[in-house]
Amino acid sequence: MSLGNKLDVLKEQVFEANLELVRQGLVIYTWGNVSGIERELGLVVIKPSGVDYDSMKKEDMVVLDLEGNVREGKLNPSSDTPTHLALYREYDTIGSVVHTHSAWATSWAQAGKEIPCYGTTHADYFYGDILCTRVLTEDEIGREYELNTGLVIIETLKENNRMPLEMPGIIVSNHGPFGWGSNPDQAVHNARVMEEVAKMAYRTERINGQIGTISQALLDKHYLRKHGSGAYYGQNR
Amino acid sequence: MSLGNKLDVLKEQVFEANLELVRQGLVIYTWGNVSGIERELGLVVIKPSGVDYDSMKKEDMVVLDLEGNVREGKLNPSSDTPTHLALYREYDTIGSVVHTHSAWATSWAQAGKEIPCYGTTHADYFYGDILCTRVLTEDEIGREYELNTGLVIIETLKENNRMPLEMPGIIVSNHGPFGWGSNPDQAVHNARVMEEVAKMAYRTERINGQIGTISQALLDKHYLRKHGSGAYYGQNR
Amino acid sequence: MSLGNKLDVLKEQVFEANLELVRQGLVIYTWGNVSGIERELGLVVIKPSGVDYDSMKKEDMVVLDLEGNVREGKLNPSSDTPTHLALYREYDTIGSVVHTHSAWATSWAQAGKEIPCYGTTHADYFYGDILCTRVLTEDEIGREYELNTGLVIIETLKENNRMPLEMPGIIVSNHGPFGWGSNPDQAVHNARVMEEVAKMAYRTERINGQIGTISQALLDKHYLRKHGSGAYYGQNR
Amino acid sequence: MSLGNKLDVLKEQVFEANLELVRQGLVIYTWGNVSGIERELGLVVIKPSGVDYDSMKKEDMVVLDLEGNVREGKLNPSSDTPTHLALYREYDTIGSVVHTHSAWATSWAQAGKEIPCYGTTHADYFYGDILCTRVLTEDEIGREYELNTGLVIIETLKENNRMPLEMPGIIVSNHGPFGWGSNPDQAVHNARVMEEVAKMAYRTERINGQIGTISQALLDKHYLRKHGSGAYYGQNR
Repeated sequence: MSLGNKLDVLKEQVFEANLELVRQGLVIYTWGNVSGIERELGLVVIKPSGVDYDSMKKEDMVVLDLEGNVREGKLNPSSDTPTHLALYREYDTIGSVVHTHSAWATSWAQAGKEIPCYGTTHADYFYGDILCTRVLTEDEIGREYELNTGLVIIETLKENNRMPLEMPGIIVSNHGPFGWGSNPDQAVHNARVMEEVAKMAYRTERINGQIGTISQALLDKHYLRKHGSGAYYGQNR
Repeated sequence: MSLGNKLDVLKEQVFEANLELVRQGLVIYTWGNVSGIERELGLVVIKPSGVDYDSMKKEDMVVLDLEGNVREGKLNPSSDTPTHLALYREYDTIGSVVHTHSAWATSWAQAGKEIPCYGTTHADYFYGDILCTRVLTEDEIGREYELNTGLVIIETLKENNRMPLEMPGIIVSNHGPFGWGSNPDQAVHNARVMEEVAKMAYRTERINGQIGTISQALLDKHYLRKHGSGAYYGQNR
Repeated sequence: MSLGNKLDVLKEQVFEANLELVRQGLVIYTWGNVSGIERELGLVVIKPSGVDYDSMKKEDMVVLDLEGNVREGKLNPSSDTPTHLALYREYDTIGSVVHTHSAWATSWAQAGKEIPCYGTTHADYFYGDILCTRVLTEDEIGREYELNTGLVIIETLKENNRMPLEMPGIIVSNHGPFGWGSNPDQAVHNARVMEEVAKMAYRTERINGQIGTISQALLDKHYLRKHGSGAYYGQNR
Repeated sequence: MSLGNKLDVLKEQVFEANLELVRQGLVIYTWGNVSGIERELGLVVIKPSGVDYDSMKKEDMVVLDLEGNVREGKLNPSSDTPTHLALYREYDTIGSVVHTHSAWATSWAQAGKEIPCYGTTHADYFYGDILCTRVLTEDEIGREYELNTGLVIIETLKENNRMPLEMPGIIVSNHGPFGWGSNPDQAVHNARVMEEVAKMAYRTERINGQIGTISQALLDKHYLRKHGSGAYYGQNR
């Protein structure tokens, strides 16, 4: 496939992934955005800002380089674009970034709490508690806010020694969830799972306020049976 | 467009906005109403009282002047009409008013509590906590109850120095939410957002009972990036 | 209309009301039943027991007299039939009875708590707290259980001096909600409203554990503006 | 019907039951599996691992013997297969096994708590509290994890003297629910009911933290009117 064709395929994937956010119930109105990157070209495709999902077309996707210069498209890119770009610049394993205000994950973000790993559903996708960033300083909010949102995500992952693909999402204090994956499909999938485990973690704590997280042995078992070199879940053994 | 045509367009907008309440899950049975005002004519269009959404037609919309005299339409206007009219008389920036019994916002109203601003989703639309009125006195309930509901909303906004379009909704103690906007579309949009942030605020407090509201800096950042003169969200920069 | 035609109309109403339970989300599988009475004939029409809603037909409705003798129909009537009949025998204002296991009202029933009147949504339909029966004795469970369920509903209404149409529903401890109305349409409507106010009362108590019920003045205002002789809600003034 | 035909019918039932999990809202993505057994042939039919429900076909079902040897099918069987087989080997009354991560039941599993029998909805299907297994040891997790999941289910049923068809489901600590029945239809039905009673038990405890489970008399009455030799619910008296 030519590089031009690859970019076209990515536009289609990013467009479809944005619509999938709505179908999965993660987004109302225009409250979300998905982007994807074509590493060979160094180009990012992202949803335009504030455009209704009903009328949005594949051609409305905006193409930028990693420094944020618009290379294709007539519309303004998502206002969260600098957050996406920061993640792509830092981690070359990330192929797609997604941001939503999905209600359960956002509630944890607003509460400023990590989502503890209370079960195997969580462990199948996230290798440990889903981290929550610190609150941004007044200065970080005042200048290059969206960039700083990306930087605090990276800071949090690094301080906790997490590789992005083993912890494919995070919640930003006072704000909401960001997720990622190797491609737009995976990124949205991970965002949907984060919402589901956020819901179940909430209820788990209400039922039993004393409960702890699962053992390292069980975390390893579930995460690695799907993701490790010895994975035996699915059809790709 | 002629004034007659403008009134006709408004009827269509009000009719559609009432149906949108159902589609957005804010209303069951006939539990809601939207109105709009044509300022040049000084006429208000509002949903009729107790008419099923399934059989309601655009022609059923009732037209009144600001004193509540019916000028067009064969049906009784919504019993909440005096509340709507009080808001239009007080604030000429309000172009549409909406009332629902949407479950999350109504639960806060029944609890008699403001909805604290716990996150950026809230700050994108409401410039601070969503206010809750005081309880009406027995006398206010006994005489001109619906008018007094409007007056206590205005009293609450004024005591808290809030302009209506920067705080496009409120909850009335023991009762439920009222919202507004520059047009019917915006008013319903704001009512939907109020319901969503009411839900997330509820969950936020359950997850972390000690959490405070977001900083003034973050509130300013989010509200103003969408609504201030320096707004840079969307396609209208 | 002939009496035979009236019975046929009632069968249609009861059949449709049973399907409406599913559409309103009050029932899964076969967990609900609606009946109606034709007072001139002294005949009750009720859903058959344990028949799938998908395959159920109007002709499957069972006709009984007030003593429970089957007068028409090949299928067994709902196992809750004696509860319905007890209510019809006691109150000649009741034209239809409905029973569901709708999740919110059933949760209150399981908790053995009245649903407090926390707001105007509740007051628009129920003239005060929705009562909760006492637990049945072992003897009442062991002999004529379904009849005794009806008798404890009547006992609870009488002890609290409630007329059935001003309190068109109740919750039975350990079990779930029963509702009623002047016809099947109204009975299902009331059951749907009970579910909604049960949900909002739950959330109200979580938000503010100290909140009390609304004032008598507000209860009177809302109940009577819809139901009293001076009612001014809707189109029938 | 020939044995070959019976196996074909079972494949169809298992396939449909897996799709029903999605329709009943018990499963997102590929998070569930249903199997069924043909006792005369000693063959189990189970869903393949990690295949999208949208593209899955009846022909994709995998056939195994009770020792786990694949006898038909090109795809890998569900990774939970050893759990299903352990249950079939132990209890010859079980005709179908289902596993989901349905949100309410999973929340109880993550909390490590039995689901108490708070009402008649529960008692209609489960003869007492829904049990919760102990946590698996590190050794049990490390070796033959899925088999050990089945063994701890059996251990829990036996220690509590429960026959599987009178307690047609269980929750596995840190993990989620397993259910069963005499056939795939019944097994999914029981899984759906478990989810509903898990939801209502959660809310019951929030409303009244002091509430106890229902009396033995009421449990007997409801369970036995549907399941005992004197059952009088439904059309099969």
